[in-house]
Amino acid sequence: MAIRTIEVRERVMARNDALAAEVRERLAASGVTAFNLVSSPGSGKTSLLERTLDALGEELGIAVVTGDVQTQNDADRLARRTSRLVQAVVTGGACHLDASQVLSALDAIDLRQTRLLFVENVGNLVCPASWDLGESAKIVVLSVTEGEDKPLKYPKMFRNARHAVINKIDLLPHVDFDLDQAIAFAREVNPELQFFLTSARTGEGLERWFDFLRSQAGAPLAV
Amino acid sequence: MAIRTIEVRERVMARNDALAAEVRERLAASGVTAFNLVSSPGSGKTSLLERTLDALGEELGIAVVTGDVQTQNDADRLARRTSRLVQAVVTGGACHLDASQVLSALDAIDLRQTRLLFVENVGNLVCPASWDLGESAKIVVLSVTEGEDKPLKYPKMFRNARHAVINKIDLLPHVDFDLDQAIAFAREVNPELQFFLTSARTGEGLERWFDFLRSQAGAPLAV
Repeated sequence: MAIRTIEVRERVMARNDALAAEVRERLAASGVTAFNLVSSPGSGKTSLLERTLDALGEELGIAVVTGDVQTQNDADRLARRTSRLVQAVVTGGACHLDASQVLSALDAIDLRQTRLLFVENVGNLVCPASWDLGESAKIVVLSVTEGEDKPLKYPKMFRNARHAVINKIDLLPHVDFDLDQAIAFAREVNPELQFFLTSARTGEGLERWFDFLRSQAGAPLAV
Repeated sequence: MAIRTIEVRERVMARNDALAAEVRERLAASGVTAFNLVSSPGSGKTSLLERTLDALGEELGIAVVTGDVQTQNDADRLARRTSRLVQAVVTGGACHLDASQVLSALDAIDLRQTRLLFVENVGNLVCPASWDLGESAKIVVLSVTEGEDKPLKYPKMFRNARHAVINKIDLLPHVDFDLDQAIAFAREVNPELQFFLTSARTGEGLERWFDFLRSQAGAPLAV
């Protein structure tokens, strides 16, 4: 039975990879950069996106696809901050988004008016690591309240991410979090990882994050 | 293909339920109460267990089974706090413990010397909700840094838990967390949920948690 489970899983993953390739092609054809935001629940992905939409939503033509297990809370929060499209996917119990869900969401987004797409994945440090959504890169968000050992405990996620946002740095004086150690642990599993230190609450560190996004967004929209 | 996946999943779950029943029988035969601790990564499960082992490890004959995706970090941390057995399970990528892993772990534990067993599940608010480990009850740990909306976003976990520990309350002055709202949201999905407010860091609220554990532990050990 174990072998049969693996067979089914392999076919499901192969199908996902084919759909992810299709997502990637469609985004490339429209010159859209896509980031897959992954983290624990409560790391501040939605707050970071709120601040990002406030600052850059119009400038960079940002669209968002949110994945949630049961609710549309994140999409509702984000839709209040932007006139641009926020597309909600409810996974109905699944612990990650898959490429077919992102592909369906793309149908509702005007990609010609979009330079940057954020996919806010389900809050989960395990499952989303295995699922290619056709993104340009994964960005893992880690908050300073979670403990500096998370990169070692969830290495696949940190290995598969290209960038890491260490969020809630306003709380550093109040928690036992060794920032240097956290970065060292993360570099142990992924030496290429690029870091941003932010507080979505106070705004600290966001300018560097915004500059990075400006440098990554697709070509300016045709008028 | 989707249908076949579900068939396999149902058989896997049926097998898990049978093994969970076996765990439950073995624990009952030895008068052991077992709590399955579930939460996001970084909510403070391990810190709470460290304080609990310090205070009650010997008094209540506590044994621990930890589940981690890749490392044995949690088990190592706990083993430093107790002479009692800490059994590590590495799930090798899986986002939850299953009953067969707990059953194997029980073989290494002297149940006659144990009154209370903690199973520290993988940090994940989705997967562990679906897997019965033969526990007496699930206890969900939520930290005040995660946002008060988590019970609505992960309702299955809060519905399947009997108790909730709201941890890191020492950080309440520094975060935007509405404690009453969090409790109201949790009660919305599970009106029976019983709450503990704790800080594993400062010790606040731990006495009530300890009293609860004393009231729940199995009969005193035979001499």
